[in-house]
Amino acid sequence: MPNRTVYFVSDGTGITAETFGNSILAQFPGKPRHVRRPFVDTAEKAHQVVHEINQTSEAEGRRAIVFATLVNREVLQVVREHCKALVLDMFNTFIEPLEEEFQVKSNHRVGRFSDVARSQEYHDRIEAINFSLAHDDGQSAKNLESADVILVGVSRSGKTPTSLYLAMQHGIKAANYPLIPEDFERSKIPSMLEPHKRKCFGLTIDPERLSQIRNERRPGSKYADLMNCRYEVNEAEAMMKRNGISWLSSTHKSIEEIATTILRDIRPDRLIY
Amino acid sequence: MPNRTVYFVSDGTGITAETFGNSILAQFPGKPRHVRRPFVDTAEKAHQVVHEINQTSEAEGRRAIVFATLVNREVLQVVREHCKALVLDMFNTFIEPLEEEFQVKSNHRVGRFSDVARSQEYHDRIEAINFSLAHDDGQSAKNLESADVILVGVSRSGKTPTSLYLAMQHGIKAANYPLIPEDFERSKIPSMLEPHKRKCFGLTIDPERLSQIRNERRPGSKYADLMNCRYEVNEAEAMMKRNGISWLSSTHKSIEEIATTILRDIRPDRLIY
Repeated sequence: MPNRTVYFVSDGTGITAETFGNSILAQFPGKPRHVRRPFVDTAEKAHQVVHEINQTSEAEGRRAIVFATLVNREVLQVVREHCKALVLDMFNTFIEPLEEEFQVKSNHRVGRFSDVARSQEYHDRIEAINFSLAHDDGQSAKNLESADVILVGVSRSGKTPTSLYLAMQHGIKAANYPLIPEDFERSKIPSMLEPHKRKCFGLTIDPERLSQIRNERRPGSKYADLMNCRYEVNEAEAMMKRNGISWLSSTHKSIEEIATTILRDIRPDRLIY
Repeated sequence: MPNRTVYFVSDGTGITAETFGNSILAQFPGKPRHVRRPFVDTAEKAHQVVHEINQTSEAEGRRAIVFATLVNREVLQVVREHCKALVLDMFNTFIEPLEEEFQVKSNHRVGRFSDVARSQEYHDRIEAINFSLAHDDGQSAKNLESADVILVGVSRSGKTPTSLYLAMQHGIKAANYPLIPEDFERSKIPSMLEPHKRKCFGLTIDPERLSQIRNERRPGSKYADLMNCRYEVNEAEAMMKRNGISWLSSTHKSIEEIATTILRDIRPDRLIY
C-alpha cells in the first residue's frame, strides 16, 4: 500500500485508535503512512483535520483511511459528513449493542484517561514505576518483600524494559536482579533472592543474539564474546532450573508479550480486576 | 453494572482488546469485573475459555460481554458458536470494509507484536528506554545533544514517568532534568540546558498537589512544605517563561495525555510515521 495514508483521529489522546488501527492494519500487507491527530475536540479543529485529510486523499489519488475514536457528537458529525475518506467509526459501532445489552445510554465522555490522574489505580502505577526504578539491576535489596515480581537473568536479557513495562502498564512492582559470573562460580542464586524464589521469573536469551546486543555496548569485550555468552546463558538456565524458577526466552518476544506471559504464569490475579 | 463480567479474549497478548474495550466501557456508568485471557490460539484453549465464560454468565445471572481480537478463524468460530455471551468481534467488523477498500485479502496473522523483537522500530524503543534511564533526573549531561526531548520541572512534577513513557511507547529519547532551589537562587537555568533550550519542555504542578505528593515521601520536611512548594513552582514557571520553554500542568493529566501533548507541540513529526 504505497501512497496511502491512515489517520487516527480522536478527541482524546488517540492511543486507542492507534493501538486498534495498527492491529487491524497488521492483517494487511504493506505499510501505509500513519498520522495521529489527537485532541480534536471542537468542530473547528474537526474542520481543520478534515481539510488536511481531503488534501491528502486528493494528492495521493486514493482516499485516506480514518480510524476515528470520537465521543464528541458534533466532531464526529463533521468528520462523517465532510471527509473524503473511508471513515471507520470505532466507538459507535460497538456502543449501540452495548447500550442495548446494558439497557442504559452511554455518557459520551471523552477519553479513558480523563480524571485518572487522581485515581488510586493511577497512583499505584506511578508508585510501581518508582519502585521498579529503585530496584533496577539489583540496586537495592530493600523492600524486596513488597515486590510483586522479581525478574532474574543475565545482563542484557531484557529485564529492565520488561520491569518498567510491567510497572507502567499494570502497576506491578517489578524488581529485577542480574545473574552474574560470580553467582555461577558459587553455583548459588544471590542470597537476597533466596527468600523470594516464589516470585522470581527468569528471562533467558539466545546466546548469539545476546553476544550481538552486548557487542553494541562493549565491542570485542569478553562480556560480549560468544563463548562467554553461551557459558552465562547455560549457567543461568541451570541455576533457574535447580531453583524451580520458571523462565522464558526473550529472543523473539516483545516486552508486551513477555509481560503478558509473566502475568499469566505468576500473577494471574492481575489479569482480573 | 455490578455482577457483570467483561472478558478480553485474544490469540495474542489481548492488549488491543483491553485498550479498546476499556475506552468503550468508559462510556458507561459502573465498573464490571475485567478478565483478560491472552494467547488463546488453539480450539482446545478456546473451548476452555468458553467454558469459563459460560459458567460466569450462569453464576451472575446475566450474560458476560466478550471483546474478542481473534485472528485465528478456528478459535473465533468456537467462541462465536459456543459462548453464551455478547461477543463483540472487533477485528472482523472492520476487516471487511478494509479488504474491499484495499482490494486485497487480509492475511490472518496473529498479533501486532509478532516478530517485532528484531525490527528496527523495536530496537529503537529499547535504546530509547536505556537513554531515558541513563538521563533520568539530570544524572548525565553526556549526549544531551542526542536527546529528542528534555523534560524540566521541579522535583515530583512527573518528569520521570513521562520520560519513560515517551521512550517505551514512542521510541523518543527523553532526558529529564530537575529545576532545584539553587537554580532559582541563581535565577538561571542549569547551564547544561542552555544549548538545548529548543528541545526543553516544562512540567508544572499545582503546589497543593505537589506538597501532598512530597509529603508521602518526606513527611513534614521543608521539601514538602506548602509554602516552599509554592515558591518552587512560581520560580520554575517564571524561569521557563523567561527562557521561552513551553510547559503544561501535570496536575490533572495522565502520563499518556502529557506525552501526547508534548509530541504534538514539540515533536509533531513523531505523530507521523
